[in-house]
Amino acid sequence: MAFPKGIIELVDSLYQQGVNEAVICPGSRNAPLMIALTRHGGFKCYSIADERSAGFFGLGIALKTGRPVILCCTSGSAGLNFAPAVVEAFFQEVPLIVLTADRPKEWIGQWDGQTIYQENLFGKHAKAFYDFETDDCTQAPLTALAEPKGPVQINVPISEPFYPEPGFVLEKSETFSLRQNLTKNKEQSTKNKVDFAYFNQEIASAQKILVTVGQMEDNSIFESLKAYGIPVIGDATSNCGSMIAHDLLLADESIWPSLQPELHIHFGKSFVSKRIKQFLRSHKPKQSWLIHPNPIGRPDPFLCLSHVVNTSAENFLAGVNWTKKNWTAWNIAIQEKQSAFFAEKNWTEIHIYQAITEAIEKQEAEVHVANSLAVRYINWTLAKFNKTEVFSNRGTSGIDGCLSTAVGAAQKTDKLCISLIGDVAFQYDRNALWNKYIPDNLRIIVFNNGGGGIFRNLEGAKDLPELDEFMETQQGFTAENTAKDAHISYFSAKNEKELDLNAFFNNKGPALLEIHTNSIENAAELKKYMALFKA
Amino acid sequence: MAFPKGIIELVDSLYQQGVNEAVICPGSRNAPLMIALTRHGGFKCYSIADERSAGFFGLGIALKTGRPVILCCTSGSAGLNFAPAVVEAFFQEVPLIVLTADRPKEWIGQWDGQTIYQENLFGKHAKAFYDFETDDCTQAPLTALAEPKGPVQINVPISEPFYPEPGFVLEKSETFSLRQNLTKNKEQSTKNKVDFAYFNQEIASAQKILVTVGQMEDNSIFESLKAYGIPVIGDATSNCGSMIAHDLLLADESIWPSLQPELHIHFGKSFVSKRIKQFLRSHKPKQSWLIHPNPIGRPDPFLCLSHVVNTSAENFLAGVNWTKKNWTAWNIAIQEKQSAFFAEKNWTEIHIYQAITEAIEKQEAEVHVANSLAVRYINWTLAKFNKTEVFSNRGTSGIDGCLSTAVGAAQKTDKLCISLIGDVAFQYDRNALWNKYIPDNLRIIVFNNGGGGIFRNLEGAKDLPELDEFMETQQGFTAENTAKDAHISYFSAKNEKELDLNAFFNNKGPALLEIHTNSIENAAELKKYMALFKA
Repeated sequence: MAFPKGIIELVDSLYQQGVNEAVICPGSRNAPLMIALTRHGGFKCYSIADERSAGFFGLGIALKTGRPVILCCTSGSAGLNFAPAVVEAFFQEVPLIVLTADRPKEWIGQWDGQTIYQENLFGKHAKAFYDFETDDCTQAPLTALAEPKGPVQINVPISEPFYPEPGFVLEKSETFSLRQNLTKNKEQSTKNKVDFAYFNQEIASAQKILVTVGQMEDNSIFESLKAYGIPVIGDATSNCGSMIAHDLLLADESIWPSLQPELHIHFGKSFVSKRIKQFLRSHKPKQSWLIHPNPIGRPDPFLCLSHVVNTSAENFLAGVNWTKKNWTAWNIAIQEKQSAFFAEKNWTEIHIYQAITEAIEKQEAEVHVANSLAVRYINWTLAKFNKTEVFSNRGTSGIDGCLSTAVGAAQKTDKLCISLIGDVAFQYDRNALWNKYIPDNLRIIVFNNGGGGIFRNLEGAKDLPELDEFMETQQGFTAENTAKDAHISYFSAKNEKELDLNAFFNNKGPALLEIHTNSIENAAELKKYMALFKA
Repeated sequence: MAFPKGIIELVDSLYQQGVNEAVICPGSRNAPLMIALTRHGGFKCYSIADERSAGFFGLGIALKTGRPVILCCTSGSAGLNFAPAVVEAFFQEVPLIVLTADRPKEWIGQWDGQTIYQENLFGKHAKAFYDFETDDCTQAPLTALAEPKGPVQINVPISEPFYPEPGFVLEKSETFSLRQNLTKNKEQSTKNKVDFAYFNQEIASAQKILVTVGQMEDNSIFESLKAYGIPVIGDATSNCGSMIAHDLLLADESIWPSLQPELHIHFGKSFVSKRIKQFLRSHKPKQSWLIHPNPIGRPDPFLCLSHVVNTSAENFLAGVNWTKKNWTAWNIAIQEKQSAFFAEKNWTEIHIYQAITEAIEKQEAEVHVANSLAVRYINWTLAKFNKTEVFSNRGTSGIDGCLSTAVGAAQKTDKLCISLIGDVAFQYDRNALWNKYIPDNLRIIVFNNGGGGIFRNLEGAKDLPELDEFMETQQGFTAENTAKDAHISYFSAKNEKELDLNAFFNNKGPALLEIHTNSIENAAELKKYMALFKA
């Protein structure tokens, strides 16, 4: 056969620009893409059958490498199964290149099998759409990496025959020149020039400056601000090393007036905590700046945005003149209350999260915290993740691919890669373990409270007669059989005595620890804990 | 709280129009929809956590009831997980009403959690999009049921608080007047007036008429044509009772000229068999008519379409004057070859499908045949499904929800509901069994050949060095643990002696039978079988 025209060149062009990981979902229509990727020689290729899981697996890799990862699938609904990961990547700003194989155009709408409308398959949730036949697809990696980073789609119509002659050899490219170009370009894009005069003046004149940090990758850039007496707050997902337990502190609304800032500066993306948003919305600062190289639209979660500063956090922090503030209102110590509470342990989730967070910090580890309750618990414990980088799918906050993301990311680290996940999110995404890439450093901790425990903590929801059946989704599944299928060592604990974290962390291969708790007891204990901070 | 305005009215209006089944996926934002549906009293409600599976489950119900089924989910990526089922429903022409809860509009693009661009979430793959706040959503059921039937989306922005006061009671409606309206309207829409004069004339003058039947629900309307000596051919998914094994017959290309029709009339939707398409494309009839009340576009899979007749198959068959043809070219008996082949059994898939098809026909049963190899095998056996209705997701031919569709459909029949499915499609959709609605009449037969066996049968693919890793997706999973989790009786067979179909069919509750075969042996035996018909 003549190998479909242009596919080898496309794949090589992606490689030349620094793309070198591809998650390929089996199919017939996309066979030429698969062959071009696997035989190129420059790509690490993964074969994953469930496209939904494959999408998040690729997202996990991209989170670690910072480079666009290729997702490749056959025609039809296959690409739609990528959509949850694509949308998460769009809002979490993670670069992906989605290669969807397609029928030749004349077959669209002709009742041919596996044929749907694949143009702009992800709508507004892809940064760009490229028609392989008419567009310049070589721009795809640059577009995916330009701020805000995100996913792009290349739709590739392919005619039969799909398979090359036996012995067909693709030439491996040895030219690396373009690979450096991309990196340079990436650096430049974040070095926008900012006129700092105005910002310096405002910073100098404001007495009460509050810095908030939304989701960010591991960073220590905010350390310096602490020396200026400027409070920096962030959820665990901000990785900013905040020592202020803002979510608990703000539980006491009587102190909100004393905490009102004059100037608010926000870095990073979204917040998990609802309280910080409620607080700032009701106690607005005079000015609120968003520091972001190029946000989508004009995001204003705090309803007080006055300026968008188009630059990176690093640039901004280095560019402005900080002056000593010593605004101590935020430094109210609540650790004593926390310590007293955690001194008396019992077998409920808040205590278990405390113990596990403490134990993980002693490991060389990264954690992937699942939606929806897990990512909240880690904001409430006294123990904190400081040297442990925290990842979480907070772009759209779905439960649909939390485990797959962790499995993907685990490919790219030598540290323990730990997924903290509830039983519903685990079962939802159990196909994360249906592939051949379950690495030895993977640790999964499933918090099994028999259903979606989060609803039992919500005022209003917790007393609904529909709670059991239609919200909590009580389900009797355990993770044991899924672990068995995937040849993962299984640990479980129904009480403190059974909890052997050392054995779990030091297991020779991948391991899953299932922690069984009672949803009603969890909710009661959490309520008791939260009451400590209310007034 | 004031219950969010208009939601009760919306839900009741859907009910008044005959909608009475709702698949609800747990969430907070959609709680008011859930409450309005469950407390209404007129809806059978199901709670299913994995939206992808829930979507197909709803599709399965709609396949059986012919009425639009509600899919209801929370905001964010949840709705995207419905997309594979929505697209299948669009192309298979099955009515669905998708209710996506959303943030209030002012929060879109504001980094609020679980917030994406939900307007027109399914793009061209929904028949209509309704904004709950500005559009007349009461039209949704009629739109879903108008030909071609299909899915519609209603996006419902909902503000907090989500939960009503304890004791809040919704009034159950007792007005049924509109329920009848809908049915009437449905009948009218298919009774388009057709001027039959032209068609009668062409039918009278043509000697060689070939009728093809694509996917259709159970029907016996084509029986009368046989008396006129007009060959009727259809795949098993056509449910048309064709006794001509067209796919095997057409394997011998030397007879194609003798089979060329002057007039080709097509009913129903798409074909599984590629050969019939290749045959008609290369041996075009003078005229080719598509009989369909209102197809999307002008589908022309045979590349010879001359007329679209906008009416139902029933209307057309009743409306034209058929005349005796006696075109016997198509009635070549190949049963002898088949009988001889199947007389010597061995443990490969083609023989097992033959035995199972024969056994199922003796049951009161319906079958759901999965993509991609299963739906092909049932076209090749000598035994046929005649009194057994055949369902298959041939709208987009994806493997993503074949089992969930069967589980949904099983809710609405007292017959045995049998899923015939390969191991990859089974594992892909194993969350089909993660809910509380696994009925006693469900039977699942998993053909486990250790991977996607279809690729081993494809010329070109079967010899690729990438076959094992990147196409066949060899996977060591069995279905046993998944069955165990779902409390489904597990049977397995590695040879003929272990195959006890009686015990399996007569099991007291739901049961899964896993048939282990060797992929290489399957391919070799199938090749031997196909060779019988080649010249």
